[in-house]
Amino acid sequence: MSALRPLFIVAGIGRAAGTGAAAARRFSKEGYSVALIARGEDSLNALSDEIKKGGGEAAPYCIPSYSADDITSAFTSISAQFPNSHYALRAALFNVGYAVWKPFLEVTASEVQESLSTNVAAAFAFSRSAILKFKENKLDAENPKRGTLIFTGATASTRGNKMTSAFSIGKFGARALSQSLAKEFGKDGIHVAHAIIDGQIMTGAALERSRDQPLSGLSPESIAQAYMYLVNQEKSAWTWELDLRPAQEQW
Amino acid sequence: MSALRPLFIVAGIGRAAGTGAAAARRFSKEGYSVALIARGEDSLNALSDEIKKGGGEAAPYCIPSYSADDITSAFTSISAQFPNSHYALRAALFNVGYAVWKPFLEVTASEVQESLSTNVAAAFAFSRSAILKFKENKLDAENPKRGTLIFTGATASTRGNKMTSAFSIGKFGARALSQSLAKEFGKDGIHVAHAIIDGQIMTGAALERSRDQPLSGLSPESIAQAYMYLVNQEKSAWTWELDLRPAQEQW
Amino acid sequence: MSALRPLFIVAGIGRAAGTGAAAARRFSKEGYSVALIARGEDSLNALSDEIKKGGGEAAPYCIPSYSADDITSAFTSISAQFPNSHYALRAALFNVGYAVWKPFLEVTASEVQESLSTNVAAAFAFSRSAILKFKENKLDAENPKRGTLIFTGATASTRGNKMTSAFSIGKFGARALSQSLAKEFGKDGIHVAHAIIDGQIMTGAALERSRDQPLSGLSPESIAQAYMYLVNQEKSAWTWELDLRPAQEQW
Amino acid sequence: MSALRPLFIVAGIGRAAGTGAAAARRFSKEGYSVALIARGEDSLNALSDEIKKGGGEAAPYCIPSYSADDITSAFTSISAQFPNSHYALRAALFNVGYAVWKPFLEVTASEVQESLSTNVAAAFAFSRSAILKFKENKLDAENPKRGTLIFTGATASTRGNKMTSAFSIGKFGARALSQSLAKEFGKDGIHVAHAIIDGQIMTGAALERSRDQPLSGLSPESIAQAYMYLVNQEKSAWTWELDLRPAQEQW
Repeated sequence: MSALRPLFIVAGIGRAAGTGAAAARRFSKEGYSVALIARGEDSLNALSDEIKKGGGEAAPYCIPSYSADDITSAFTSISAQFPNSHYALRAALFNVGYAVWKPFLEVTASEVQESLSTNVAAAFAFSRSAILKFKENKLDAENPKRGTLIFTGATASTRGNKMTSAFSIGKFGARALSQSLAKEFGKDGIHVAHAIIDGQIMTGAALERSRDQPLSGLSPESIAQAYMYLVNQEKSAWTWELDLRPAQEQW
Repeated sequence: MSALRPLFIVAGIGRAAGTGAAAARRFSKEGYSVALIARGEDSLNALSDEIKKGGGEAAPYCIPSYSADDITSAFTSISAQFPNSHYALRAALFNVGYAVWKPFLEVTASEVQESLSTNVAAAFAFSRSAILKFKENKLDAENPKRGTLIFTGATASTRGNKMTSAFSIGKFGARALSQSLAKEFGKDGIHVAHAIIDGQIMTGAALERSRDQPLSGLSPESIAQAYMYLVNQEKSAWTWELDLRPAQEQW
Repeated sequence: MSALRPLFIVAGIGRAAGTGAAAARRFSKEGYSVALIARGEDSLNALSDEIKKGGGEAAPYCIPSYSADDITSAFTSISAQFPNSHYALRAALFNVGYAVWKPFLEVTASEVQESLSTNVAAAFAFSRSAILKFKENKLDAENPKRGTLIFTGATASTRGNKMTSAFSIGKFGARALSQSLAKEFGKDGIHVAHAIIDGQIMTGAALERSRDQPLSGLSPESIAQAYMYLVNQEKSAWTWELDLRPAQEQW
Repeated sequence: MSALRPLFIVAGIGRAAGTGAAAARRFSKEGYSVALIARGEDSLNALSDEIKKGGGEAAPYCIPSYSADDITSAFTSISAQFPNSHYALRAALFNVGYAVWKPFLEVTASEVQESLSTNVAAAFAFSRSAILKFKENKLDAENPKRGTLIFTGATASTRGNKMTSAFSIGKFGARALSQSLAKEFGKDGIHVAHAIIDGQIMTGAALERSRDQPLSGLSPESIAQAYMYLVNQEKSAWTWELDLRPAQEQW
């Protein structure tokens, strides 16, 4: 690491109980400043405050939508608050997801639109901003890697299923994007990875439901551990894709 | 086949020199009436006229865009012209495609939007109309299969690559859709298939360019032969996906 | 087709009630002479006699094992009986399979050995003999394709599962082989294809068991239809791999 | 970790300059005793001595072949030297590989046999011994994971190619095995993972060749880092498969 403080940007915080929040907490503990992008202001502010109270550096960026414009604006604000003179973006996580579970004929045109906008077009815009920012980092012996961009995938990223027509069109698309980017930007020292989360993530609600069956899903902290590993991979052996599932999962 | 005349609907005709047109000609030769949906009026009318002159039954449906509304309207018009009293939709082909080959950072937000709209949202709307219409067909001993819905895929349907970020997000999405539909509607006697066209299709322009290297790509007629085979597959052995590439292709 | 009579060689006949036998019958009906290779003499002779009684030309080649030597010997005998002066090998089917369904710790070393020998090493030897024989065919305008080599795959060809460790090591291996061959020999006009049979094949025993649920599996005749299609594919659009499963299959 | 000292068994050391040796060194540094299985006595002893000189605990097990019997014998010897009273097997790596790069028609029957024996049958036997030994470990709050079994895969594990018919049949097979085992033994707290090494590993000879292009391949140490990560994954998020390739690799 250079003298610049490493910055981690994550988009998609939900109710601050899942993967995005766990990643923010983990990266903060490892010395990263964290910039949080999300739509829900309350959870966003709560998480930012929590990290700051824990001694970390964090800032919330509430955006009205995951449109290209709103994402670009958020990055502009982040760049102002975390200037290149003192910070270097080293890791970015696209953790936004719009899930629909419905028989095909019940899916509405606006759900299709929302899935494509949120799961794919927003991923495209987020990747663009992150990669442009990674490119501002110098590549030298100390920092052979400009930065790492991670996508949170799902079972629906590689398999279309009965109830997932509207969801999988979006998750497949984001996976395609991640592969294109990994191939295009590897030579520039930008690492792009895609994690297939193949199981239920144990967020607040899921934990509540599974009280009698401990450890029936993935803990967000374990996923965050995987993301930290990806960010720390040495340049001679980068992973584009890995799957993550609970030990006892049927698959 | 019942006494009803079989109908084939194809969306995506281009300049009437590629896969959609070849499929229309082939299905016409095999006794299908063909309904042609496309945006380019001249090619559309020319193909429709050509088929009619050849003794077939055809009708053009020019739509301003591949929005859900325009596709639904086209199906309504088709249903009026080819009523259930005399026709039964037996095959539908989604051959629409929007291809972009560009380095990631040169892709515009409107190209992303267009790729998702044309390659995925339009496929969703077309599938909905086709499946609803297939469901009007009776399932009996003579017709154990309600109908077949085929998607024209590409290399970019299964691999994101350096120049294909904007294209592959759309083609991956359509493939996800086709798999979801195949799983959901197989039990209803509706067959959904996805063809990965893994090579250059020899349309007019490509033929022109390759004059010195005969047979360097896929002929649209060979692809149409594959589609006809899929439509004729017996119910006990349906294919969701096959790849198609020239004998001499490097892959 | 040239003046030479087309020859079809199939290895793996079982009790003459499954895929290999259905393919032999189908190819015979389409004008091919058929050479049948198998270990079980009674079923082999019965099928050969049946085809001959139906007006076809057939010959049985009973081999003690699927070793490279025994397979090579069978091809030598076939070449003597169906000489190049009158016959041309146009299609070959490797339909041999050794299936084991067992928890991993119950699998014996000899079952592992048998799976690898029968599913893979035999496929290797069969492919070698078939390709060498295809290479004797002249490539000309009338016969742009030297021949087609097809492998019967299974669900276990692409997915390892709890009870299939010993089976899938063999089926994965044969699939790898088919892909290598497809890539290496396409330019020579030799077409290699792999069919993933993703469901229960309705042979005698399976039919018996499913009397109350008609059409719960794949009919061997439908699979044979697919193989005939693959053999007839035009050179500009060859399929390496397709899946085949019953309409109502859960997958 | 319990009071028992963790043991790591690795099979496949080569000339002690590649993945197996790097993993042995890394696990030793992290506090594991290491048992080394290989055929080449000199490299084996040299590596064992090197680790011991560095303060680690290591023992060499030279076997005449990777037959099931020889592998079982090696595990028996290991169990005697590292008894359950003081040691617990926590990680095992199958790093044995037999690579053949040849046009299909030049591959000999004995190369086919050797590929299947070494890449698959030996993997089967090694897995059996490792899993039986993992099962001796108690599963408790302190040790929620009995052990981790890792396979070193290759590009040829997922793609058959022109020169890799004989190699890929073996590597596909080992991958199938790893997936079956991951599904069967996850619920027992045994983690099975498969790493696709998609590029040239920079062992001694490769390093020599690439003197002018530093970092053109994967360093064995980076691969070892990945294996250590897999072993340390928390039980709620296990990876079956990941790919590893150099940043600048074309793929």
